[in-house]
Amino acid sequence: MKLYFSFILCAIITACSNSVSNNVGNNELYQYSTIDALLGGVFEGDLKTSELTTKGDFGIGTFNAVDGELFMNEGELYRIRYDGKAYPVAASEATPFAVVTFFQRDTVFEINGTDGFFNYEDLQAHLGNTLNGNSIYAIRIQGDFNEVNTRAPAPAHSPYPTLLEHLKDHQHHFTLNDVQGTLVGFFVPHFLKNVNVGGFHFHLLTADKQAGGHVFGFKSRSLSVELSRMRSITVAMPNTSAFQQVDLDLDRNTDVRIVEKGE
Amino acid sequence: MKLYFSFILCAIITACSNSVSNNVGNNELYQYSTIDALLGGVFEGDLKTSELTTKGDFGIGTFNAVDGELFMNEGELYRIRYDGKAYPVAASEATPFAVVTFFQRDTVFEINGTDGFFNYEDLQAHLGNTLNGNSIYAIRIQGDFNEVNTRAPAPAHSPYPTLLEHLKDHQHHFTLNDVQGTLVGFFVPHFLKNVNVGGFHFHLLTADKQAGGHVFGFKSRSLSVELSRMRSITVAMPNTSAFQQVDLDLDRNTDVRIVEKGE
Repeated sequence: MKLYFSFILCAIITACSNSVSNNVGNNELYQYSTIDALLGGVFEGDLKTSELTTKGDFGIGTFNAVDGELFMNEGELYRIRYDGKAYPVAASEATPFAVVTFFQRDTVFEINGTDGFFNYEDLQAHLGNTLNGNSIYAIRIQGDFNEVNTRAPAPAHSPYPTLLEHLKDHQHHFTLNDVQGTLVGFFVPHFLKNVNVGGFHFHLLTADKQAGGHVFGFKSRSLSVELSRMRSITVAMPNTSAFQQVDLDLDRNTDVRIVEKGE
Repeated sequence: MKLYFSFILCAIITACSNSVSNNVGNNELYQYSTIDALLGGVFEGDLKTSELTTKGDFGIGTFNAVDGELFMNEGELYRIRYDGKAYPVAASEATPFAVVTFFQRDTVFEINGTDGFFNYEDLQAHLGNTLNGNSIYAIRIQGDFNEVNTRAPAPAHSPYPTLLEHLKDHQHHFTLNDVQGTLVGFFVPHFLKNVNVGGFHFHLLTADKQAGGHVFGFKSRSLSVELSRMRSITVAMPNTSAFQQVDLDLDRNTDVRIVEKGE
């Protein structure tokens, strides 16, 4: 099975970059802190979710003390805790790492397995051939999943270890079968790998808004994909001593592959 | 001579981060394209200087075809060409790489050689011990220079080589003696080294606004230093095929040391 996908519909919808360029907030990625700081144990930030929602209506991240996975879509913010369940989030919560945008799709298409199922690796390979590798994309994927493999972390306690150390014993895995759901996430070029997760990174919320998590894998027959190419990335630097003191010169590539990719 | 500097005055002036945080544009770094794209030969951008001046009043960069060094201070924009002379810049000019902010100093102090002269390496060593290594700083340095060593490139012609290849034969060096002048530049943490020049990076304009260039070295007895810690960095991605096609996965660290540091 060499060809996993057939395009049912591939259309440029609404926005071209020219028409978008005067709309403040569109196609602009806002990020709080860096993935390397999070990997290094900077688990508390000073950005409230009430402020985060002024920076975007779509995105992913985590909460202080890495207490769950952050999922935002259409302005609705959820936390998927280590019981695997999704909870609405109070405006007073804060995040140590989050990546958001006001999502406005440039392109939408449907992906179907030509020969039955396709999985997360197939999707990444296909999108990897479709997307420009030097550009950042916000990506929303919706449909029926035969299976999704997710995780969510239990909260850590100060003094914080590295994220890799914490997740060794505090990462809870879930297998969701036959669910409708939405993946919210990003493709980030590898030249930004110290700043964000290079490659693909998705969080799931089921359509009933009851469950989800950080996505390690899935199986599906058909999914709808919406792409939005970002024209800028803003990285806000936390004004915390933990951020200012963490060693950001370490090579945390191995950590990120284990922690975010499940390799 | 172990101690090169004595602080005459070291005062926190006007802005603390709290009072600044609601002023849009203050302490925010805006950058167009990436240093690695410039090093890779992406010498044409689609950002006009008329738009660049809406993103900051202070900064450095270059112009399309790397036709000179860009210097901006107090909203005034100059190009230092390969004749070593400074020229005002038309609003219709465009840049392939520029880094700007609305400069608002947090701190100002004077640096004096305790035992006579100090040089650029001494200044970097001293500031390196003073600044937080995970933060970005805009830095303005003014005073009398006994000597400044600068360069400016002659313009390149399409199809463009890498910046290193171009500068081999098209970099003009200047030695300015006994000049008053202003250094405009930045300190950027090394975790952003694929995005911007890690470490220090300054351009000079003399006080008579006649000469300057990219700074490789200097000698002085006394300089005034103003620091502004950035709370965010925004990287705008050029919407050009050259940017989308350049190889940003190459390690260009050796290039940047030769091209920007003169090593």
